[in-house]
Amino acid sequence: MIMNKNIKVGIIGGSGFTGMELVKILSRHKYVEISFATSRIYKNLLVSEVFPSYQDNGDMKLAFTCQPEKGNLEKIDLIFLCLPPLKSMEFLKCIYGNYKFKIIDVGSDFRLKSSDDYKYWYGTEHILKEKLSDFVYGLTEINKDKIKKSKYIANPGCYPVSILLGLAPVLKSNIKIKDINIDSKSGVSGAGRKLKDEYLFGSLNNNFYAYSAEGHRHTGEIEQEIENIGGKKYRVSFTPHLLPMTRGIFTSIYCKLGEEKTEEQICSLFENFYKCSPFVKFMGKRIPQLKDVVGTNMCLIGFCLDVRTDTLKIFSVIDNLLKGAAGQAVQNMNIMMGFDEKEGLQFNGIFS
Amino acid sequence: MIMNKNIKVGIIGGSGFTGMELVKILSRHKYVEISFATSRIYKNLLVSEVFPSYQDNGDMKLAFTCQPEKGNLEKIDLIFLCLPPLKSMEFLKCIYGNYKFKIIDVGSDFRLKSSDDYKYWYGTEHILKEKLSDFVYGLTEINKDKIKKSKYIANPGCYPVSILLGLAPVLKSNIKIKDINIDSKSGVSGAGRKLKDEYLFGSLNNNFYAYSAEGHRHTGEIEQEIENIGGKKYRVSFTPHLLPMTRGIFTSIYCKLGEEKTEEQICSLFENFYKCSPFVKFMGKRIPQLKDVVGTNMCLIGFCLDVRTDTLKIFSVIDNLLKGAAGQAVQNMNIMMGFDEKEGLQFNGIFS
Amino acid sequence: MIMNKNIKVGIIGGSGFTGMELVKILSRHKYVEISFATSRIYKNLLVSEVFPSYQDNGDMKLAFTCQPEKGNLEKIDLIFLCLPPLKSMEFLKCIYGNYKFKIIDVGSDFRLKSSDDYKYWYGTEHILKEKLSDFVYGLTEINKDKIKKSKYIANPGCYPVSILLGLAPVLKSNIKIKDINIDSKSGVSGAGRKLKDEYLFGSLNNNFYAYSAEGHRHTGEIEQEIENIGGKKYRVSFTPHLLPMTRGIFTSIYCKLGEEKTEEQICSLFENFYKCSPFVKFMGKRIPQLKDVVGTNMCLIGFCLDVRTDTLKIFSVIDNLLKGAAGQAVQNMNIMMGFDEKEGLQFNGIFS
Amino acid sequence: MIMNKNIKVGIIGGSGFTGMELVKILSRHKYVEISFATSRIYKNLLVSEVFPSYQDNGDMKLAFTCQPEKGNLEKIDLIFLCLPPLKSMEFLKCIYGNYKFKIIDVGSDFRLKSSDDYKYWYGTEHILKEKLSDFVYGLTEINKDKIKKSKYIANPGCYPVSILLGLAPVLKSNIKIKDINIDSKSGVSGAGRKLKDEYLFGSLNNNFYAYSAEGHRHTGEIEQEIENIGGKKYRVSFTPHLLPMTRGIFTSIYCKLGEEKTEEQICSLFENFYKCSPFVKFMGKRIPQLKDVVGTNMCLIGFCLDVRTDTLKIFSVIDNLLKGAAGQAVQNMNIMMGFDEKEGLQFNGIFS
Repeated sequence: MIMNKNIKVGIIGGSGFTGMELVKILSRHKYVEISFATSRIYKNLLVSEVFPSYQDNGDMKLAFTCQPEKGNLEKIDLIFLCLPPLKSMEFLKCIYGNYKFKIIDVGSDFRLKSSDDYKYWYGTEHILKEKLSDFVYGLTEINKDKIKKSKYIANPGCYPVSILLGLAPVLKSNIKIKDINIDSKSGVSGAGRKLKDEYLFGSLNNNFYAYSAEGHRHTGEIEQEIENIGGKKYRVSFTPHLLPMTRGIFTSIYCKLGEEKTEEQICSLFENFYKCSPFVKFMGKRIPQLKDVVGTNMCLIGFCLDVRTDTLKIFSVIDNLLKGAAGQAVQNMNIMMGFDEKEGLQFNGIFS
Repeated sequence: MIMNKNIKVGIIGGSGFTGMELVKILSRHKYVEISFATSRIYKNLLVSEVFPSYQDNGDMKLAFTCQPEKGNLEKIDLIFLCLPPLKSMEFLKCIYGNYKFKIIDVGSDFRLKSSDDYKYWYGTEHILKEKLSDFVYGLTEINKDKIKKSKYIANPGCYPVSILLGLAPVLKSNIKIKDINIDSKSGVSGAGRKLKDEYLFGSLNNNFYAYSAEGHRHTGEIEQEIENIGGKKYRVSFTPHLLPMTRGIFTSIYCKLGEEKTEEQICSLFENFYKCSPFVKFMGKRIPQLKDVVGTNMCLIGFCLDVRTDTLKIFSVIDNLLKGAAGQAVQNMNIMMGFDEKEGLQFNGIFS
Repeated sequence: MIMNKNIKVGIIGGSGFTGMELVKILSRHKYVEISFATSRIYKNLLVSEVFPSYQDNGDMKLAFTCQPEKGNLEKIDLIFLCLPPLKSMEFLKCIYGNYKFKIIDVGSDFRLKSSDDYKYWYGTEHILKEKLSDFVYGLTEINKDKIKKSKYIANPGCYPVSILLGLAPVLKSNIKIKDINIDSKSGVSGAGRKLKDEYLFGSLNNNFYAYSAEGHRHTGEIEQEIENIGGKKYRVSFTPHLLPMTRGIFTSIYCKLGEEKTEEQICSLFENFYKCSPFVKFMGKRIPQLKDVVGTNMCLIGFCLDVRTDTLKIFSVIDNLLKGAAGQAVQNMNIMMGFDEKEGLQFNGIFS
Repeated sequence: MIMNKNIKVGIIGGSGFTGMELVKILSRHKYVEISFATSRIYKNLLVSEVFPSYQDNGDMKLAFTCQPEKGNLEKIDLIFLCLPPLKSMEFLKCIYGNYKFKIIDVGSDFRLKSSDDYKYWYGTEHILKEKLSDFVYGLTEINKDKIKKSKYIANPGCYPVSILLGLAPVLKSNIKIKDINIDSKSGVSGAGRKLKDEYLFGSLNNNFYAYSAEGHRHTGEIEQEIENIGGKKYRVSFTPHLLPMTRGIFTSIYCKLGEEKTEEQICSLFENFYKCSPFVKFMGKRIPQLKDVVGTNMCLIGFCLDVRTDTLKIFSVIDNLLKGAAGQAVQNMNIMMGFDEKEGLQFNGIFS
């Protein structure tokens, strides 16, 4: 390790689930120094006070600050924005172009490339339309080359990560697909840290249900990237559900095929596609389980060919806060900075 | 209550989840006396020893027995069979026609009406083929009149209950359906009480996954009854998943429509269909939640019309051990015996 | 059932966990008609809208109201108060003595008999001091005769129910106890329905911790009743903990004995004490489990004699919302009104 | 990193929860190469097949073997034994002294120093009595100097780790303690991976209970080390309970004090004691929570002084599989080998 390889980063929004995961991951990253992490809830508290098991790196004790100081913004090499919808663009509007730092927006403001799509799915005008094209869609396994050269990244949504990684090999092939129906199940942390009656323990424990069945916002992002990956437009039915768990997304993708395919053909498609992707593992006909990825940056994918109904069923699992958010963001940072893609991301998980 | 309205029943297989629920329900039923309940695991133990909160009815203390005695078989009015696949037909083969009692087979042996279908889905020859047609498919809301007149009932499987109740109003109407895709999520008790590594707490807690994705046995039963209800054959894609919960099934049904329908039309369809069904409640566009039915005999149904993809999404929830098994069986008994359909089945649930 | 035996009741505070359980229990009670149930959150909503599986009794549809009307207060025979600390006495201060109805205060305002104790444990002056002695402490198994004759009942706290039922037989005997140490573990619903970060699913799932370790308010109530039962004062160490479950209390009581006792002596003590108590079951040396009581009105008690340390360990379990609150309240109502003590309270529970 | 600092280790019993955690930890340890890991269940399977998210180190793919080969035993520097009671001594009896490797017995065979104690608590004769004194009790924070010089380590039990770390500062001081009562609550993985009805998901979900209340085997180990630490004998009442969680131990220690102490005195006692212990964090009067340690090697400790009853309440939490087993074992290895005590053990945990 050469010390001057180190970079300085800032984190805006450190008290959300994703921001906090970033703080944890980056505090153990070989080449990163956290310059600041903002949090309104935790301002002036040490990270180790907020999270008792957090171990500071040597003498440097990280405390949350309320806002980033100008001096700090000038020093950093990269900033992570972990903000709710609309807040990233508000933050960037004031400072766009003023600083040299690269940006990874872990929020949702710069994922959609068409401002019309943005308005349709988010119900409001985008206030930085002209900058939408500056941001590369940060799904590493698909856009690695673009990410490498990019200054600005729009980190993908958690559902889209699980869905697009499951679909990409099929979309890239010439397999005829007549219909795509997606049924996703997510742990509760996907909803963020909101103080609502519906997120109380008593409301979620031993419970399960669908929500946003008429059109979850991620649908727009999914359809945009489906087209970007395969070159063909699809309208997909997407239905998210809430699991009585804190972390994890299990996605079941049902593709109605327009032609016959063998299991061997499907297998070789996925194996070739992901042979150089350290964080995606294709398991063939073995169906992945959520507990195998919770606490890790892995995406596991399995499939099943239901020949009675010409349905290709693809199952993919991720930890929504890692490969679906903070882990994916660090993976992008590693690529952008020329670090080993895996650096800081090889967690053991909680698989016993 | 006129005392001589009372009937005597027997339960074969009282130590499985379903058998045990039956013992509980029937011990509180106004018009029922349990003559015997068999259980290999619990034989000679009092029910109140096995389940400490069980309260015996007055002085009569119910103990599990190993096998039913001939004398007991002669006295009872109705028998419930709560046995694993193949075991109900083996039991009945020896005694078929020897006794006057009515039969409710809570197991899976007499649900499929074609012995070819049986062989396809269960992988073995049926040993009482000629009796398959004696058994009425016991989904009360659909077959109430037949059940009333029948001596033998094949109680439906837990997944089919949740699926068929969700689909029936649409199937009975003249709505054009191009494709049916079903994604069900079940609590662990659906798998029965098996001593396997995969059913240990450590294997299921904080976990979720799909299983039997290539063809769960219930598919045959679902397709058979879809045809019986609507008069039209469909091949359905059915994918069951396992929830980290003990009880409950949440089913998401995706119907690709072949014509435009309004939400009002869907609503009136369901409202009319279930207006006389005390245990099915249509909630319109409100999506039901699993915790609202756990511990009850209710099936709650909601829907959503995704006009972007012409998809009618129907969501239905049940407690797999009650409306999906033991409760459904008692509901059938009530109908067969001329009792109030609701007698013994109005549980409050655990909804706080 | 003779119809004119029916009584009319009112419920103040129907949207809390306890109030809701009361609505459920009383809607199935043979001899009770709910005249009104108030709830600020749910006002004007039907109970069956709030809780989809709730089944109205025939045509009568119960809707929550904001406040009880004077006319309604005149008609009812009994009122249940399910209110947070301080609110019961505020409510009663305005109307005390104006109406004929009996009162069961399910809240905590009238449990302590000394206004000094009240001030010590609740940190504020009691505003109806002179009425404290009007209220009988409503732990049925201990005070049945007084409850029968009483007009006003202070329903016990959930922890005290589990603790006092476990201790009573020992306290009533002449066994020498040197020290009492109590370690209780409660499901989350015990804290009521509060919108705080610490009660979110993400805060409690897979978590466990102690709270109020320096002196939980129930300590005063426990020590008062220990003295009332045994005639001897004790200072007890009481430490509550929070379980990652919705319902249930498991209490471990450690009594340091001042003399040698045999297991047989302990057994006969408990067996005699509870032989006429339908809702308490002594299980001897078998340790009770929480899942055996969730959803029931039972208290199960087991014990263990650790002769190495002269410690009598008593274990008791209840459902905090039933035997620890709403069920206990209805049991008291049954006694006060001359109904069968068990009426409306024989739930099967969720024990599979 | 100097490559020739690397050591080779073997793991006996790699399919148990502890063995598996060791494989995970050691596969990421800078200075360790796993020569072999045995497992009867998984023999010949790659670790990455058994645990899909496991990432092999470069080209070396680790596969489980049935038994260690003699050649392998000769090459290794250290062996970890993760075996059930009696099995470690059987394994060692055959080979004791034949090899140069150091031994860390993660099992329970060499913790008790008196063979009489062993017989009392384990109900059988020890077959390597004369070797008991060769093994140092491996609680790093207490015995670091001895561990450094030792060849053989008896890794402590999970309950004792949480209890002894909570008690040690008090025992080492001259505070008068009249009585020690311990109430521990453990996640299910503490029981190991046993195929029993009581460990099924349906038996443990939403459940909680005490077990081994008359004398858990760890009591002997606790009392032995209490004497070793403080020089004074105590008989402690110890009662373990089972939490509906996979991992974690929460221990509540109740010390009846024989003299008055202030909170400040207690605080400075703990702060001094643990100021150089990277894996123990004293939180003062803040009560630790289980979710703060799950997935980490930390022990968090808080306290409360109940002056009404002269009770010092100490609360400690650990992850039973890490600080309570595999993490503790690696910490000992680091000390024995002269590595940084923290190497390979700085996990972020799952604290959001």
